Amino acid sequence: VTGAEALARTAVAGGIDMVFTNPGTTETHLVAAFEAEPGVRQVLCLFEGVCTGAADGYGRIAGKPAVALMHMGPGLANGLANLHNARRGGAPLVAVVGDHARSHRNVDAPLTSDIASLAGAMSDWVRTTGAPDEVSRDMAAAIAVAQRGAVATLVVPTDCQWSTVDAPIVSIPPWTCGFYEHRVAETAEALQAATPSRAALLIGGRLDEATLRAADRVAHAVGCRLLVDRAPQFQVGSVDVPAPERLEFPSDLLAQQLAALDLLVLAGAELPKAFFATTHSPNHPVQPDTRVQLLAEPEDDVLGALQALVEVLGGPEPDPSSREPVTPPTGALTRESLAAVVGSTQPSGALVVDEAITSGFPYRRLLDRCPPHTWVPVTGGAIGFGLPAAIGVALAAPERTVLALVGDGSAMYTIQALWTQARLGLEVTTIICSNRRYAILAGEYQKAGFGDSQSSAAHLFELQRPELRWPELSASMGVPGTSVNTAEGLRAALMRALEEPGPHLIEAQLVP
Amino acid sequence: VTGAEALARTAVAGGIDMVFTNPGTTETHLVAAFEAEPGVRQVLCLFEGVCTGAADGYGRIAGKPAVALMHMGPGLANGLANLHNARRGGAPLVAVVGDHARSHRNVDAPLTSDIASLAGAMSDWVRTTGAPDEVSRDMAAAIAVAQRGAVATLVVPTDCQWSTVDAPIVSIPPWTCGFYEHRVAETAEALQAATPSRAALLIGGRLDEATLRAADRVAHAVGCRLLVDRAPQFQVGSVDVPAPERLEFPSDLLAQQLAALDLLVLAGAELPKAFFATTHSPNHPVQPDTRVQLLAEPEDDVLGALQALVEVLGGPEPDPSSREPVTPPTGALTRESLAAVVGSTQPSGALVVDEAITSGFPYRRLLDRCPPHTWVPVTGGAIGFGLPAAIGVALAAPERTVLALVGDGSAMYTIQALWTQARLGLEVTTIICSNRRYAILAGEYQKAGFGDSQSSAAHLFELQRPELRWPELSASMGVPGTSVNTAEGLRAALMRALEEPGPHLIEAQLVP
Repeated sequence: VTGAEALARTAVAGGIDMVFTNPGTTETHLVAAFEAEPGVRQVLCLFEGVCTGAADGYGRIAGKPAVALMHMGPGLANGLANLHNARRGGAPLVAVVGDHARSHRNVDAPLTSDIASLAGAMSDWVRTTGAPDEVSRDMAAAIAVAQRGAVATLVVPTDCQWSTVDAPIVSIPPWTCGFYEHRVAETAEALQAATPSRAALLIGGRLDEATLRAADRVAHAVGCRLLVDRAPQFQVGSVDVPAPERLEFPSDLLAQQLAALDLLVLAGAELPKAFFATTHSPNHPVQPDTRVQLLAEPEDDVLGALQALVEVLGGPEPDPSSREPVTPPTGALTRESLAAVVGSTQPSGALVVDEAITSGFPYRRLLDRCPPHTWVPVTGGAIGFGLPAAIGVALAAPERTVLALVGDGSAMYTIQALWTQARLGLEVTTIICSNRRYAILAGEYQKAGFGDSQSSAAHLFELQRPELRWPELSASMGVPGTSVNTAEGLRAALMRALEEPGPHLIEAQLVP
Repeated sequence: VTGAEALARTAVAGGIDMVFTNPGTTETHLVAAFEAEPGVRQVLCLFEGVCTGAADGYGRIAGKPAVALMHMGPGLANGLANLHNARRGGAPLVAVVGDHARSHRNVDAPLTSDIASLAGAMSDWVRTTGAPDEVSRDMAAAIAVAQRGAVATLVVPTDCQWSTVDAPIVSIPPWTCGFYEHRVAETAEALQAATPSRAALLIGGRLDEATLRAADRVAHAVGCRLLVDRAPQFQVGSVDVPAPERLEFPSDLLAQQLAALDLLVLAGAELPKAFFATTHSPNHPVQPDTRVQLLAEPEDDVLGALQALVEVLGGPEPDPSSREPVTPPTGALTRESLAAVVGSTQPSGALVVDEAITSGFPYRRLLDRCPPHTWVPVTGGAIGFGLPAAIGVALAAPERTVLALVGDGSAMYTIQALWTQARLGLEVTTIICSNRRYAILAGEYQKAGFGDSQSSAAHLFELQRPELRWPELSASMGVPGTSVNTAEGLRAALMRALEEPGPHLIEAQLVP
């Protein structure tokens, strides 16, 4: 076999069945090798940021890595922002990048660049294959790293792809995670010793219903607060699933939220951090005298650890309680009415991709009053995630409906994703939260004391002049689009989109 | 003044008048500071790849750097592919990237990444400002580096922007380049000693009419061959301007082209390199026994060096000769008839941005039969250059008409550029060379022995299913668009577009 064939077979042996790609000359052999594997589907994206965002979404919902196959330094560079999001979210993802033949590396040809440095900045693991016989071993290592919830980038010179290899294909079994018993015991002891109102359990990562219920039972057993990461990999929501208090985004509010804690237990979550430093907020929202107790790290069996903790702590099952479902509003389309329309109209079992930066705040407060669904937020703060991620989650769960709530500014970053949605006929409905501005920046500008929407720099935060004509833009790439400006209109458009097969786009024009 | 104000004033003192940006929270203070400078224009782009491509185009035609202002690691990452092109073309460009406050750098907040590593892979120079008092000095250093034809990236932590500085504003005079007399003497001697048919002068960089004429006079004086880089920064063309033989793209043809040389003189060009290594072509197209003589490096005064060489070599002015202008063809729209329509219709003085990867080959062979124009090709092999670069060249020469020939695959990489073209009402006409495929990849795939357009992997190289509806896509961002599929139709559409003010897009549907 050739090196490229060895890589593709190693991928299959490691459970990989999906490749998102925009290949170039240095990926020709890899494309042919993946195409020869009946168990692998290759999906063409019109920009690498779509490949990596789709692979992020796929990895989160499938629970195993997809491959993002990209062309040399510039191709990888285009995919880095969504690799960053995947890495920050702990999503499993293998990036494969073709490079010049080894003999051509030091020629300084036009497309030459330092790929490993680029990859290193947004990957947990990087390797450049040194010889054809190492291709399978390196790909297996990349998959093994990625399976644990990490971004692994493998750079493969073309001559290592086209040369014949003698080394065996390395097979990687699916990853089975565990947890540490002694951390369960320590955590139980710490929680029992703490003043309940001054203790909190913070969860993050892959928040399925069982994990949320186990965490809720721990909190009930000792009476402590239950907190959840700002942006977990995903989180299940419904009227009867526990809905923990979410960490605040503004640095000052986050510090207030965590100020009164003697004990903070981490389960699948990292230590809370301020998103940005400001002139007036602390870098470390957790007080120095708070005891931080690690129960389980993101790559551990968080559910297992929580269930073991429930065993130790005992206590009754919390009373089943059910919240009032959201009801559909009428009238003007505000952030609040948009949230209520979506929350009352989304079908049971929906996957909801959320990159509605400022417009999404009210929706996020309603997750616990929606039909059962899985919420998939942008994790690393890099915009351009939503439309690509919708491709990945749709392919990972073809039987489920996908909704993507995306800000207009964010959507324009990777708008090419619509073409792939149309090509594959995916059941994705994108709702563009259209406020015709980068609202978060306008807000930051005002907070920094430089003036409001009347200031001379306002033209740098607004998306009018010209207005983006979303229905046309969407239709031009094969996705039927419409535009609405009332709550009733949004509900009707959403119901129609959910009825008709294939992808749709709805521009929800918010009142200014 | 604050650090941000010091940076903006240093920029103005260094001759900077244009900022292409998609700012974020960490650029708030820089946006406000640039906005306060009446000599600086800030242009909003909907994706960072548009910012860097526009800055590349601006720098090439203005002959001085613009600033691309971007948000942290992910924003810079989105701009890297076109930074790569700028660096490979030797275009002057200053990238400014906001980062976390210094106190927040090691907190590992969600948007944290190793910005300097990212920047280093695609910049000639990188610095991270260490203190507010260093901001002006660092920005001045960046401008000084960029002026010489380089990409300089400065990373500025937010606290260095908002803090008060006491250090003076550093002023950078415009760059004046020179050349080495002794290299002129050595080159003259080498050319005179060589067998004329086995000697060549290779030129590159900023190829204005005077440079092309001086190079032509040198070649005539000694009877040697005159060669030109595959992708110079720009090259003037017309029926009576010298049109040197262009270096070949395929590695084997390039090696043949350079095989018979005893002497190769470089003037503003780098040593020729194979674009890609293949299993059958050499890495080094220049033979080991060819003497390579450096007359002037890209950042030198190449024209001055060539004129000095003319002085030494003497010889008469070459006879003024004029080639037959292209005439407009009729009938089917092929790559060849597209080239002839554009070449016969483009107005005198046009700036022609060229990212028509495979579709552009025939046009590039006609540069010497077009009305006087400046050809601006993609230099680094990273696609997504054409639409953004058209913004930059249009702003650098507002009195000139801009044509952008862009492949459909390339255009989709940075399609958001159309919005900025519409917003500014730029005189840009984009011709989408629409062959509905990544033709260069399909060709490479076939050459590698994996089969033709009937192969199972063909779906990874084609842009149909669904077809991109270019007129709608264009109109959705405010640029009137049309679609043509005959030579007459293209000519009529182009003439209309040139008559009407503002940007236009024409899809030229090529026969398969």
